[in-house]
Amino acid sequence: MASISEVTVRYAETDCMGVVHHAVYPVWFEIARTDYIKNAAMSYSEMERQGVMLPVTGISCKYRQPAKYDDLLEITAYITRFSPARIEFYYTCKRKGSPELLTEGTSAHAFVDAKTFRPLNLKKAMPELFEKMDAEYRRDSQLLEAAQSHNTEQI
Amino acid sequence: MASISEVTVRYAETDCMGVVHHAVYPVWFEIARTDYIKNAAMSYSEMERQGVMLPVTGISCKYRQPAKYDDLLEITAYITRFSPARIEFYYTCKRKGSPELLTEGTSAHAFVDAKTFRPLNLKKAMPELFEKMDAEYRRDSQLLEAAQSHNTEQI
Amino acid sequence: MASISEVTVRYAETDCMGVVHHAVYPVWFEIARTDYIKNAAMSYSEMERQGVMLPVTGISCKYRQPAKYDDLLEITAYITRFSPARIEFYYTCKRKGSPELLTEGTSAHAFVDAKTFRPLNLKKAMPELFEKMDAEYRRDSQLLEAAQSHNTEQI
Amino acid sequence: MASISEVTVRYAETDCMGVVHHAVYPVWFEIARTDYIKNAAMSYSEMERQGVMLPVTGISCKYRQPAKYDDLLEITAYITRFSPARIEFYYTCKRKGSPELLTEGTSAHAFVDAKTFRPLNLKKAMPELFEKMDAEYRRDSQLLEAAQSHNTEQI
Repeated sequence: MASISEVTVRYAETDCMGVVHHAVYPVWFEIARTDYIKNAAMSYSEMERQGVMLPVTGISCKYRQPAKYDDLLEITAYITRFSPARIEFYYTCKRKGSPELLTEGTSAHAFVDAKTFRPLNLKKAMPELFEKMDAEYRRDSQLLEAAQSHNTEQI
Repeated sequence: MASISEVTVRYAETDCMGVVHHAVYPVWFEIARTDYIKNAAMSYSEMERQGVMLPVTGISCKYRQPAKYDDLLEITAYITRFSPARIEFYYTCKRKGSPELLTEGTSAHAFVDAKTFRPLNLKKAMPELFEKMDAEYRRDSQLLEAAQSHNTEQI
Repeated sequence: MASISEVTVRYAETDCMGVVHHAVYPVWFEIARTDYIKNAAMSYSEMERQGVMLPVTGISCKYRQPAKYDDLLEITAYITRFSPARIEFYYTCKRKGSPELLTEGTSAHAFVDAKTFRPLNLKKAMPELFEKMDAEYRRDSQLLEAAQSHNTEQI
Repeated sequence: MASISEVTVRYAETDCMGVVHHAVYPVWFEIARTDYIKNAAMSYSEMERQGVMLPVTGISCKYRQPAKYDDLLEITAYITRFSPARIEFYYTCKRKGSPELLTEGTSAHAFVDAKTFRPLNLKKAMPELFEKMDAEYRRDSQLLEAAQSHNTEQI
């Protein structure tokens, strides 16, 4: 179920426009994604040791308001698609305690064998992990549907 | 017209999966975009001095094949949308001398006043720059259409 | 007095040698330094708003053992020199709960006017901040002396 | 013999102080170092394939003048120490066409086995590479001595 990660903006993450550089958000989304998996099932490093990797096949990001140095941010991750072969996440970035959406994004991933980098069926390779993630995915779907039916940008 | 930038993969740009980290590509696309503008009209730093900024409002990226340390890459940038208020770029990343598409992406930008960060009409603010970029945009549109009509992924 | 900051190693911070890239440590030291100042007196962003900047004039770093993806690290910062014109920090990086020193480093800084970038006398510009930092510096000196007299690498 | 690498400052390499972030210089020094080795003997990726790695054991950096977005810089690398077990480099960073020293730095490295990460004797492991690098080292020593005897900051 939707996992929230806190990030404080580093000086090195800003650029000479005075705000966070746009290429930093995918790095934060990655933190939120690995926190999500850790909360749901196991650390991503443990997953890699057990032979499964989750390379990124695509990302997208929409920038609405800039974040600034020293801002305390909340990155929330949701699973939006899930199958034995693929997983997709949706992310929001807000200042802690503020409802305003600064940035939102997505990432798409394939499950691959950590040695051969070949596609892998997660349901067969790690059935327990698959079930846990699938349950999380279904909870997130309900969350996101409920949010959309209230016609809100809160999510 | 489509501008090509060369980039050699830095050690710091790889991650422990052994390949280039996915958040590095938007940084390379930014290089290609500023090279494009420099070739077409003027340096981006000059544009900023003249009062126009080009903040990123959105990006997307699709990862097909990984790039590795020390690879010599060609990042090609095309303008895919252009108006007095907005501009969009499309990028491809290939190894130099190879037709294989490693990564492709897009970025969307608004023209804003460098002091107020308010939206700005480029046609009014910098008419000469607007005309030059518009001519480039039309050349790129023809290039991309021709490529699509040959039903190829070369572009 | 010595301030401890926790950092979890990000995937993007590793390189294809499988460990944290060496250029990441100065970024972590910066986090520890700004946490230190925040704990002692005020946030660095507040300091900047009040007109004082702390640009880096020099750094050094010694790498003893590598950190890896997902490691939970403790970065400790100490003030090792302090005057109205300059400040120096010493940093250690260890895994949380482990006495082993992974990396140690230093940074040197000048106090400058945030608008003119000219050298500035902190004692005159912000006397209260100066006194607080000076007290911290003296506590750190005692800490580091005590540690050295026990001939230990703990610090 | 002293190898010069050109780098154009990326937008992502600047910070909200308006200049290049200090942690970027070690990344540029790494580019200069790998260019040096490539010019002298072979690419660093080839060295890794032949079983030798060059992890960083220490770095230092002195910041004199800031570099800014879009600056075209020259990073020059020299070998300042060389033995079968270790190598040290010295770097300068200047704007192209300007004698002014912006930043200077050093890096220290051990030769290690790429599989075991154990120390390795380069003279035994790759005698040809050792001889080439040793000749470069001797040329650099003469260069640096000559420069010092003219009491200049040119080097």
